[in-house]
Amino acid sequence: MKISIDAMGGDNAPHEIVKGVYEALQAFEDVHIQLYGDEAKLAPLLQAHDRLQVIHTEEVIEGTDEPVRAIRRKKNSSMVKMAESVKNGEADACVSAGNTGALMAAGLFIVGRIDQVDRPALAPTLPTLDEKGFVLLDVGANSDAKPEHLEQFAVMGSVYAEKVRGIKNPRVGLLNIGTEDNKGNELAKTAFSLLSEAPINFVGNVEARDLLAGVADVVVTDGFTGNVVLKTIEGTAAGIFSMLKEAFNHSTKTKISALLVKDQLRGLKTKLDYTEYGGAGLFGLKAPVIKAHGSSNANAVFHAIRQARMMVEYNVSDIIQTTLRKETSND
Amino acid sequence: MKISIDAMGGDNAPHEIVKGVYEALQAFEDVHIQLYGDEAKLAPLLQAHDRLQVIHTEEVIEGTDEPVRAIRRKKNSSMVKMAESVKNGEADACVSAGNTGALMAAGLFIVGRIDQVDRPALAPTLPTLDEKGFVLLDVGANSDAKPEHLEQFAVMGSVYAEKVRGIKNPRVGLLNIGTEDNKGNELAKTAFSLLSEAPINFVGNVEARDLLAGVADVVVTDGFTGNVVLKTIEGTAAGIFSMLKEAFNHSTKTKISALLVKDQLRGLKTKLDYTEYGGAGLFGLKAPVIKAHGSSNANAVFHAIRQARMMVEYNVSDIIQTTLRKETSND
Repeated sequence: MKISIDAMGGDNAPHEIVKGVYEALQAFEDVHIQLYGDEAKLAPLLQAHDRLQVIHTEEVIEGTDEPVRAIRRKKNSSMVKMAESVKNGEADACVSAGNTGALMAAGLFIVGRIDQVDRPALAPTLPTLDEKGFVLLDVGANSDAKPEHLEQFAVMGSVYAEKVRGIKNPRVGLLNIGTEDNKGNELAKTAFSLLSEAPINFVGNVEARDLLAGVADVVVTDGFTGNVVLKTIEGTAAGIFSMLKEAFNHSTKTKISALLVKDQLRGLKTKLDYTEYGGAGLFGLKAPVIKAHGSSNANAVFHAIRQARMMVEYNVSDIIQTTLRKETSND
Repeated sequence: MKISIDAMGGDNAPHEIVKGVYEALQAFEDVHIQLYGDEAKLAPLLQAHDRLQVIHTEEVIEGTDEPVRAIRRKKNSSMVKMAESVKNGEADACVSAGNTGALMAAGLFIVGRIDQVDRPALAPTLPTLDEKGFVLLDVGANSDAKPEHLEQFAVMGSVYAEKVRGIKNPRVGLLNIGTEDNKGNELAKTAFSLLSEAPINFVGNVEARDLLAGVADVVVTDGFTGNVVLKTIEGTAAGIFSMLKEAFNHSTKTKISALLVKDQLRGLKTKLDYTEYGGAGLFGLKAPVIKAHGSSNANAVFHAIRQARMMVEYNVSDIIQTTLRKETSND
């Protein structure tokens, strides 16, 4: 299979992207990589590889660029060219660590939506205490959602969790402000009814305080709320770790304490590091588009490529389409 | 001033409630307390006090009761009687650690709304790294909100932060999924315009990842999103602390480590303990109604009473009314 990569996106591009690509080429013998980027910058990082093709692009979409405008104007950028390779059937999937909004626009306008999906959803896998993780969607592909969008998110998340994450009969929960059936705002109440009828293992409403404990394998919500959840988790974890650092720096005694527990603390940080779970999938498109975290290192890029590979191998886009088509014809 | 207390609400009632009441009576010589609860249960906990009056009530609203029905049917409950004392002018404010939904219903249907406020808001003060804290509203008094409600929340939060929390010209932020002016869902976009014109120090959009770092003194959002933020912070903090506990329990070496840093870790937990900041105010009512956390100990009850006292002393309800009245007449 062929996977296209944006070599120029993210804080550590192109160095870490290229390293991740080589790791993936070594691990997956069925993967051919098309690497889009500035040849002058890439040349010093590259060794020849029979499954690696480099395509020179001149423009770069920056993190500060306005997404839709960037996609329309920077026609020769690494991200646009990467997305076009998927649209033209030259590649089966693509991965970028660049501007999230621009990648969503490229997915929507270049790769294109599945007919049965009204709105694509951005779906990262977040850590849980038992290290199994859960898929949260949408985290911001669209900021407003209708109940039927949440139903489509649920089906897409469920197919992904089953096929790519290997979870049998994944538990799908609706993010809500209470666990009782009649809780929530108008969106959540109507979505609850739709999810109850959908072809998924719907476990009902779940609360944000139980996410880290692994209350469900897939959690659906609108893109505004999902984005707020994601950033609240990030901010709270960062805040606590910064306070911990201060606590351990307090005195000689606490510095000794830090030395004694440092391996376990590192393990704890790894547990919470969601780059291990790969990038965020942009679901609902005709082919897999993976958004690797902007601060991705080689390991995160490797996992994002692994994830794209599994989405292709297990026909996730096709299965989503078939499941939603059945759903529609049953209505 | 007179403050009414629900002696029967919360996980530690009536024991910790009574203890908190005595702490408040000792600290604040201007406070008279009316304590509503079951005399048989209260008697063993009470000593006579010239500023304490006990009013016997037979019914108790349980945490599992359906809020509105409970308020309508349990007419002789400690919570309903407490709220009625405020409505009848026998008390200036009230405090309960009981059923949150029922207290909100009691506030709305018994104490009553200020005319200028369409929807009351539940407003806790959450911890920040610099220990100054910020007021978040609404966290669930209503799960759907219109832009003009967010504007009213902003004014109420700002008046409270200034008068009760002593913050000069408090920074009011709109919770959003990006800091740029045009970000967010339809609600946030329209609210942004209204907040820009409101009589507050509006600092624009703030992101959830910056809340703990103290990006604003008051943060406004709809009750659904606010509730999700509150519970995400709780769940993330609880998850990390449980992982920390496990890390320190790993071996003899890590157990020694725990002993060496235990004072600092306790300090860290205290920093994150929002009971220190008092209860959550129910804003927009004719008199202050304070919801103490369900798991409140005596200290939390004391702080909730302190908060009610300051809201009365600084005429928070009146100032909110006057500010919103001016705002309306300017439109």
